[in-house]
Amino acid sequence: MSTFDMAEHPHRRYNPLNGEWVLVSPHRAKRPWQGQEEDVNKHERPEYDPSCYLCPTNERANGEKNPNYQSTYVFDNDFGALQESTPEGTFSKGGLLKAESERGICKVICFSPRHDLTLPDMEIKEIRKVVDLWQQEYEELGKLDFINHVQIFENKGQVMGCSNPHPHGQIWAQSSVPEGPAKETEQQEKYYQEHQRSLLADYLQLELEEKTRIIFENEHFVVLVPFWAVWPFETMIISKRHIQDITQMTDDEKDAYAEAIKQITMAYDKVFNVSFPYSAGLHQRPTDGKEHAGWHFHMHFLPPLLRSASVKKFMVGYELLGDPQRDITAETTAEQLRSLI
Amino acid sequence: MSTFDMAEHPHRRYNPLNGEWVLVSPHRAKRPWQGQEEDVNKHERPEYDPSCYLCPTNERANGEKNPNYQSTYVFDNDFGALQESTPEGTFSKGGLLKAESERGICKVICFSPRHDLTLPDMEIKEIRKVVDLWQQEYEELGKLDFINHVQIFENKGQVMGCSNPHPHGQIWAQSSVPEGPAKETEQQEKYYQEHQRSLLADYLQLELEEKTRIIFENEHFVVLVPFWAVWPFETMIISKRHIQDITQMTDDEKDAYAEAIKQITMAYDKVFNVSFPYSAGLHQRPTDGKEHAGWHFHMHFLPPLLRSASVKKFMVGYELLGDPQRDITAETTAEQLRSLI
Ligand SMILES: O=P(O)(O)O[C@H]1O[C@H](CO)[C@@H](O)[C@H](O)[C@H]1O
Ligand SMILES: O=P(O)(O)O[C@H]1O[C@H](CO)[C@@H](O)[C@H](O)[C@H]1O
Repeated sequence: MSTFDMAEHPHRRYNPLNGEWVLVSPHRAKRPWQGQEEDVNKHERPEYDPSCYLCPTNERANGEKNPNYQSTYVFDNDFGALQESTPEGTFSKGGLLKAESERGICKVICFSPRHDLTLPDMEIKEIRKVVDLWQQEYEELGKLDFINHVQIFENKGQVMGCSNPHPHGQIWAQSSVPEGPAKETEQQEKYYQEHQRSLLADYLQLELEEKTRIIFENEHFVVLVPFWAVWPFETMIISKRHIQDITQMTDDEKDAYAEAIKQITMAYDKVFNVSFPYSAGLHQRPTDGKEHAGWHFHMHFLPPLLRSASVKKFMVGYELLGDPQRDITAETTAEQLRSLI
Repeated sequence: MSTFDMAEHPHRRYNPLNGEWVLVSPHRAKRPWQGQEEDVNKHERPEYDPSCYLCPTNERANGEKNPNYQSTYVFDNDFGALQESTPEGTFSKGGLLKAESERGICKVICFSPRHDLTLPDMEIKEIRKVVDLWQQEYEELGKLDFINHVQIFENKGQVMGCSNPHPHGQIWAQSSVPEGPAKETEQQEKYYQEHQRSLLADYLQLELEEKTRIIFENEHFVVLVPFWAVWPFETMIISKRHIQDITQMTDDEKDAYAEAIKQITMAYDKVFNVSFPYSAGLHQRPTDGKEHAGWHFHMHFLPPLLRSASVKKFMVGYELLGDPQRDITAETTAEQLRSLI
């Protein structure tokens, strides 16, 4: 029998950030594919689209008009999944049926007035303005009494449920700490109690030694494919300094963060020569007023494409009922992305 | 301020089976949709397709020929994500990079020789043969020393990553207990220690009293929309008797189980008048030789369609980074499905 080789043999990897395992099948992407293919959206878009509800000066669903904004623009989501006016209340029956009302605020952030751009097309100083707005929103929403978590994210591309190509992201701020960040809170606090260092600081050190999963690095940030990546071209941006949230970033760090975003999203667009779809989001400490000393700021990129511009990874039967599962190794995709920087 | 009403106000529901919360936004499905639409596959299919690698007598990727099978047929997946020959081994670095090799067996199960059928089109006595094969495979695979979990599932429809419309499902049997079943094991054992009854037996009793989420019931099985459903038309089939796995089913129970499968999949096809895509799978006790007294056999159905035959729910940014989230209540979809039985 040969010896275990992660580049060749099916295995499970541990994600210390959420405490869960991932199944990795290194060579499975090579099997033939006769299934669904996605539309590849190659349409040229105009700089301004009169029918887009996110373009400057246009009317939105609720009848309001967007201002003639010049860089970024933020407004309350007209169809928010969370509402500020939700009354408090709980439901409980037999200990097994349990519900709690959830208050929150949903916002939309336009990254640029230009309908035809995406983050990788924007200049670093324009992306920096998006970072500034994220900082401001996290701070202001986080200060509200009833907001204990602020999730900033972007769905890019139709295949990721994005219904408008105008460059934009969202914020869902709410009373509870959602499952994903709650798991990361627990894991990071536990590690910090044991080691007096943040889990991601120690992880970053290991990765900078190993080098195989590093894609890009500047003075303040590292972009890498996490050892435990699930999505085919999944990456993370991690701050070199152990900060808990975006409000602690200096001007220099914000510039460096904008550069990291520019680099990874540009590399993505080169993988299959197509505007690369993904969901991305910032993970930072809950805004519940506690210190959360172990929390370490980072951003996740979760892109679905696997084999080509039109063939994505399906997270279905086994993945939903068993383990998250991937068909190539983190090292393979890291090498590919690194070569595109 | 009004009082909290689950039919109206955003809230979180608790899933006692896996210990996690779900965000529910009752009226969000009403927002306008300008995003991606799926192809609706309305093609008539022939009873036999000479180019299908699952039809009787045809050749598969590895050169083998399928027999001229008359009911069900099972074979080893030619492109399995798990392999029996995987050598044992572990990888570990700095406590944060951890991997373990994973041995396993992947199989494909054809439900019928007829290329043009799906489970709801089959007669109950034909579905019963699929149930018999599941029972046999769970038993035989589960007996193997290195197999500690047997995941039986079906991906139906292109939108759920299914690449061949011939009616079939899969089995992934492996050394580890995957994350989903591991969580359910923990929750069910804890409940059983405390109450000397299974969690799902008590849950079933509550649901049969409330009636609002019940879709179908026969002597041995109940089909319902779980209180904590995530996918738009998610349902569960739960055995009335507290059995840990499919090997304990009597002949009567297997007939009743086949009828339950027939009823729910037929109802699904009527929701949008289209062959309804889903991922479905059996959850039962790990085959690690332990008793798992708290385990209670059940089957999950996870269908993606939300608003129409072509508009699905996207599990993207917020759902991947925050909480699982749904746009209608469990009670609304239960009422709709019940009316279609
Ligand atoms: O094995 P298949 O049918 O080729 O593949 C399908 O089901 C698998 C198990 O859920 C997934 O890993 C694949 O992404 C999906 O396309
Ligand atoms: O809010 P949008 O862009 O209309 O909707 C998109 O993002 C949301 C948050 O991830 C998801 O709940 C929706 O399923 C998706 O279509």
